[in-house]
Amino acid sequence: MRAYQLPKGGAGIDALTKVDRPNPKPGHRQVLVKVAACSLNFRDLGIVRGTYRVSVPENIVPLSDGAGEVVEVGSGVRRVKVGDKVAGCFFQRWPGGEAPADAHATALGGGIDGMLAEYVVLEEDGVVKVPAHLSIEEGATLPCAGVTVWHAMMEHAKLVGGQSVLLQGTGGVSIFGLQFAHALGIQAIITSSSDDKLAKANKLGASHTINYKTTPDWEKAAMEFTGGRGVDCVVEVGGAGTLARSFGAIRVGGKIGMIGNLSGPATELNPGLIMGRRANIQGISVGSTQMFEAMNRAIAANAIKPVIDKVFGFDEAPAAYKHMASGAHFGKIVIRVA
Amino acid sequence: MRAYQLPKGGAGIDALTKVDRPNPKPGHRQVLVKVAACSLNFRDLGIVRGTYRVSVPENIVPLSDGAGEVVEVGSGVRRVKVGDKVAGCFFQRWPGGEAPADAHATALGGGIDGMLAEYVVLEEDGVVKVPAHLSIEEGATLPCAGVTVWHAMMEHAKLVGGQSVLLQGTGGVSIFGLQFAHALGIQAIITSSSDDKLAKANKLGASHTINYKTTPDWEKAAMEFTGGRGVDCVVEVGGAGTLARSFGAIRVGGKIGMIGNLSGPATELNPGLIMGRRANIQGISVGSTQMFEAMNRAIAANAIKPVIDKVFGFDEAPAAYKHMASGAHFGKIVIRVA
Amino acid sequence: MRAYQLPKGGAGIDALTKVDRPNPKPGHRQVLVKVAACSLNFRDLGIVRGTYRVSVPENIVPLSDGAGEVVEVGSGVRRVKVGDKVAGCFFQRWPGGEAPADAHATALGGGIDGMLAEYVVLEEDGVVKVPAHLSIEEGATLPCAGVTVWHAMMEHAKLVGGQSVLLQGTGGVSIFGLQFAHALGIQAIITSSSDDKLAKANKLGASHTINYKTTPDWEKAAMEFTGGRGVDCVVEVGGAGTLARSFGAIRVGGKIGMIGNLSGPATELNPGLIMGRRANIQGISVGSTQMFEAMNRAIAANAIKPVIDKVFGFDEAPAAYKHMASGAHFGKIVIRVA
Amino acid sequence: MRAYQLPKGGAGIDALTKVDRPNPKPGHRQVLVKVAACSLNFRDLGIVRGTYRVSVPENIVPLSDGAGEVVEVGSGVRRVKVGDKVAGCFFQRWPGGEAPADAHATALGGGIDGMLAEYVVLEEDGVVKVPAHLSIEEGATLPCAGVTVWHAMMEHAKLVGGQSVLLQGTGGVSIFGLQFAHALGIQAIITSSSDDKLAKANKLGASHTINYKTTPDWEKAAMEFTGGRGVDCVVEVGGAGTLARSFGAIRVGGKIGMIGNLSGPATELNPGLIMGRRANIQGISVGSTQMFEAMNRAIAANAIKPVIDKVFGFDEAPAAYKHMASGAHFGKIVIRVA
Repeated sequence: MRAYQLPKGGAGIDALTKVDRPNPKPGHRQVLVKVAACSLNFRDLGIVRGTYRVSVPENIVPLSDGAGEVVEVGSGVRRVKVGDKVAGCFFQRWPGGEAPADAHATALGGGIDGMLAEYVVLEEDGVVKVPAHLSIEEGATLPCAGVTVWHAMMEHAKLVGGQSVLLQGTGGVSIFGLQFAHALGIQAIITSSSDDKLAKANKLGASHTINYKTTPDWEKAAMEFTGGRGVDCVVEVGGAGTLARSFGAIRVGGKIGMIGNLSGPATELNPGLIMGRRANIQGISVGSTQMFEAMNRAIAANAIKPVIDKVFGFDEAPAAYKHMASGAHFGKIVIRVA
Repeated sequence: MRAYQLPKGGAGIDALTKVDRPNPKPGHRQVLVKVAACSLNFRDLGIVRGTYRVSVPENIVPLSDGAGEVVEVGSGVRRVKVGDKVAGCFFQRWPGGEAPADAHATALGGGIDGMLAEYVVLEEDGVVKVPAHLSIEEGATLPCAGVTVWHAMMEHAKLVGGQSVLLQGTGGVSIFGLQFAHALGIQAIITSSSDDKLAKANKLGASHTINYKTTPDWEKAAMEFTGGRGVDCVVEVGGAGTLARSFGAIRVGGKIGMIGNLSGPATELNPGLIMGRRANIQGISVGSTQMFEAMNRAIAANAIKPVIDKVFGFDEAPAAYKHMASGAHFGKIVIRVA
Repeated sequence: MRAYQLPKGGAGIDALTKVDRPNPKPGHRQVLVKVAACSLNFRDLGIVRGTYRVSVPENIVPLSDGAGEVVEVGSGVRRVKVGDKVAGCFFQRWPGGEAPADAHATALGGGIDGMLAEYVVLEEDGVVKVPAHLSIEEGATLPCAGVTVWHAMMEHAKLVGGQSVLLQGTGGVSIFGLQFAHALGIQAIITSSSDDKLAKANKLGASHTINYKTTPDWEKAAMEFTGGRGVDCVVEVGGAGTLARSFGAIRVGGKIGMIGNLSGPATELNPGLIMGRRANIQGISVGSTQMFEAMNRAIAANAIKPVIDKVFGFDEAPAAYKHMASGAHFGKIVIRVA
Repeated sequence: MRAYQLPKGGAGIDALTKVDRPNPKPGHRQVLVKVAACSLNFRDLGIVRGTYRVSVPENIVPLSDGAGEVVEVGSGVRRVKVGDKVAGCFFQRWPGGEAPADAHATALGGGIDGMLAEYVVLEEDGVVKVPAHLSIEEGATLPCAGVTVWHAMMEHAKLVGGQSVLLQGTGGVSIFGLQFAHALGIQAIITSSSDDKLAKANKLGASHTINYKTTPDWEKAAMEFTGGRGVDCVVEVGGAGTLARSFGAIRVGGKIGMIGNLSGPATELNPGLIMGRRANIQGISVGSTQMFEAMNRAIAANAIKPVIDKVFGFDEAPAAYKHMASGAHFGKIVIRVA
């Protein structure tokens, strides 16, 4: 089968190498998936650039996000059957409940080989069915960004309709967060440096948009929009300078889901801010298979369609990475495999 | 001031007596509310008929649900101010957290005098502000039916978007439940014996409707609609025969919020049903002030408008009761006071 | 290898047949366990008698509870290694979070072959390490009764120190519940028809004991012991007549964990009792691997030793069943395998 | 009546002034308490020194912690009666559920007059009964330190028996935490710079003690004690340098309850630590009346006796403050009022 591999983490986009590999075989409670499409996340860019906080094995097949069809099942498989359209779960061994301490050891395209290949063997507890109203390309966009923001908003902050969430920027995590909020009666405030992207966010149902270039004190704008109460939750994806502002935006007793440090070295955090707001901060790494299933039920019931920016061919994978690096996109970048 | 009172519980609708009473004065952390409108619940019918499971003092002013304007505040009041439009909370002494064991002793129109009067003194923790987009009549419909179903769906079952709720009939509890579900991305299945009422429910956003006259095995229809999985939650308002069917409608691990026995003597419950579904059943009595506030945020953010069936004048209060007794209504019955 | 099997459910204790079977081999993420000891539960008696509510396949190897040593691991095993002393989990496929709807299909000695054999293949997520201070016989007593009552008390009722639990009888579930309560600062009230057994319960740390023969209104005794407040949780293992009394024993807002119908046909339940206490009832079937691990941490940190009534040899398995049927035991009945 | 007052926050211990004040009268749902004893917290030292993060009104009666007897009740009081021995709640208006955003405005000895007076009027929802086995001096030690650490361990971290908590130093918060952990089957690791104090902590049931003078890498000692897993919860009371070490002590998915910055300017926090441990941090300010009641049930059921270091007379109040400032104490410092 054809696949991409990366000689080692940090080798750069141009080090991505197309290779032939033997077709894998599913063992007990495993499934063989013929991959149809993959999608990119900032994390994947971090891995090729060497800025991701977890290191990866040599010659790893990259990408956590992909979807395709089950073409063979091992012994004892109960959750899916041949012919099912499935997406892989970022963590192959976090079915539900508390995450294993070593979850990253079985993260696709991180601890173990990922999805940028024609065939992949996944654990039966490490796949979920793609909602019926989605194309397979759309299904391929869900695993990392979608589940991450679902975890932050619905599992950590336990947002309910009528509450509010502040989403930073218009990357995959924030756009999925915006779509979930809109469908679930939650008020979404979203920031960007581009009025054009904010206009698109408005069309997706943002309750309030803030251009952080022209309104650098965006936390004050968020506080004002909520009538001085503050937002219930911030999904913190930012780097330099955002965290302190996030504390200025949340209500007393509010929650911050910290996703990672995507855009540069993080500012240090004054613990006085935590006390002053009696805040709750949670470090969040994607989520479990059960969270993915819960998210898919919300996507299906509300006919949510992931936003796809551009679809690349399998041979154009490096171009897809470079498009993500440019920051020009709005929505997910997809690589078609089959 | 003018008010209605009931000589004793069970004396009947015609025993409702219009009286003159001295104007009440607010004490420490109390507010004086000039009542503008009240609304009716089945519980109020139960009280005049003597079928409600909690007995009431003699000469009680009836009705738990009402809204008006704060016209005077006692010492130490921090939560509201003169001029605020507020609704009273069903329980005057359940601000948040766990309910006091004797909550019913301070239930409006039950343990203590209720809202069917020109003026009422309420605890400052026993009022909430009416959402700005609502009329005062609409605000008067929220306290009992709205908070009850919010408690069942959002606090007990902790429903999230993508999950499903089964609502029995088209009384106030079920219609509020339908509106909340629709706004929050939750699938609502609703039953009625009237196709006309089901058509109205469809317009309010029901995902699925079932006429239980023509489909007496409504639990099977619900199971089928959910693809054999079962609903996540049933809000059980029914009497004879409904409870066993509710167990047939829920998923393994599903939840039943039990509101009361409104339509006749309850069927006994076979505990084997609880085991077979690994179900969770919770007895629910309205809710706390904090639940009311959370509900109001959802109502405000999603511009939900309570459904009002008919508005009666103060002098027509007995006619309003009789209209409720007829069962012909769809939505809340309001009595204008001021 | 040697094993017992049961021609079909309900065939009776004397139908238990000692057989030779081929040694099983572990697949991907499975482990081969050399079984050292098993223990009995009422459920196992129900299976041979045909009174258990879930049917079993023909020629099943019985018993859910057993412990031994890992002697071989399949590919990809990360949680345990050769040489580890482990107990099997009742449900082989409920690692954590929400239970799969079809959990019983992979229950040991129920849906699939159980532990009464020299070797057994288990899922790596379906075993837990035995606490270091326990013998392997003691480890074999934990899976069903221990996890069940841990689930009821700690996961469902979320009891904290200072709260109270009522335990019915002195079977395995209740005795483990008593030991957990004593170690965790929770007040345990326990009932029995035998003063001798109650004296033993006292030595294990019961806060209050009630002989339900001499005090048939045991719910009133429980209410009195709690100063009129009622207990926070009842672990309901009973049959005829106990459930209605359990409602008389709990506080307003209290919880009932319903374990099964062990001692006869269940009484029907008047839903008015649920409303009157605003009670919460949960159907409970053992628990997940993560619950088992949490329980084991409590057992280890508090040096809890399971109570073993009597140990039988492998050839005496039918005698062990008959001893359980006699009801004379106090604590777990063990069958030594290796 | 006699009372102490403080001209303004930060005026110093010697500015504490004994004054005569008129006896207060209870209003609706208020009670008059004849104070018998008070106790000191670091927060009270912070207020007289001007280092507390919340400012106080002029001429405030200091101290949040005190207990005495109800000698008069206002109208509508249901929770207590004349003759009850009660302690005041730190926050007078946080009965249960979510804290009001402005909770500090009604904090005793902070936002409003405190307990260092012969009589005080408290809200009926702002008092709890003192457990029967405690002296009134012991009851006076509970409100701030006890409820704070209960909130951190039992409400935020939701510790259950078998889990572990790391407690920093031997101040009031940590000593109560140690006693609760010991009674509830939770493993407590405690640090101090004094082997003498660690010996006392051992007698109170510490599972492990660490002298942070001789073992400055105490987080590594904690990690080692837990077999490399890390503790489930740290109650962070520290200042310079402790927070980063706390992240080194917790398990993946562990929790940090942040109580305040007691011993100096806080270190800044690298958000990478939060991600690396997928940690949860919660800013904690004492707790609600319902938490206080839950704590008292644990204290009563387990016969926990607060540790009192020394009792001062009413006229010796400044000496009591100075004793606390010396840091020589182990346990609570009490001022007898009546």
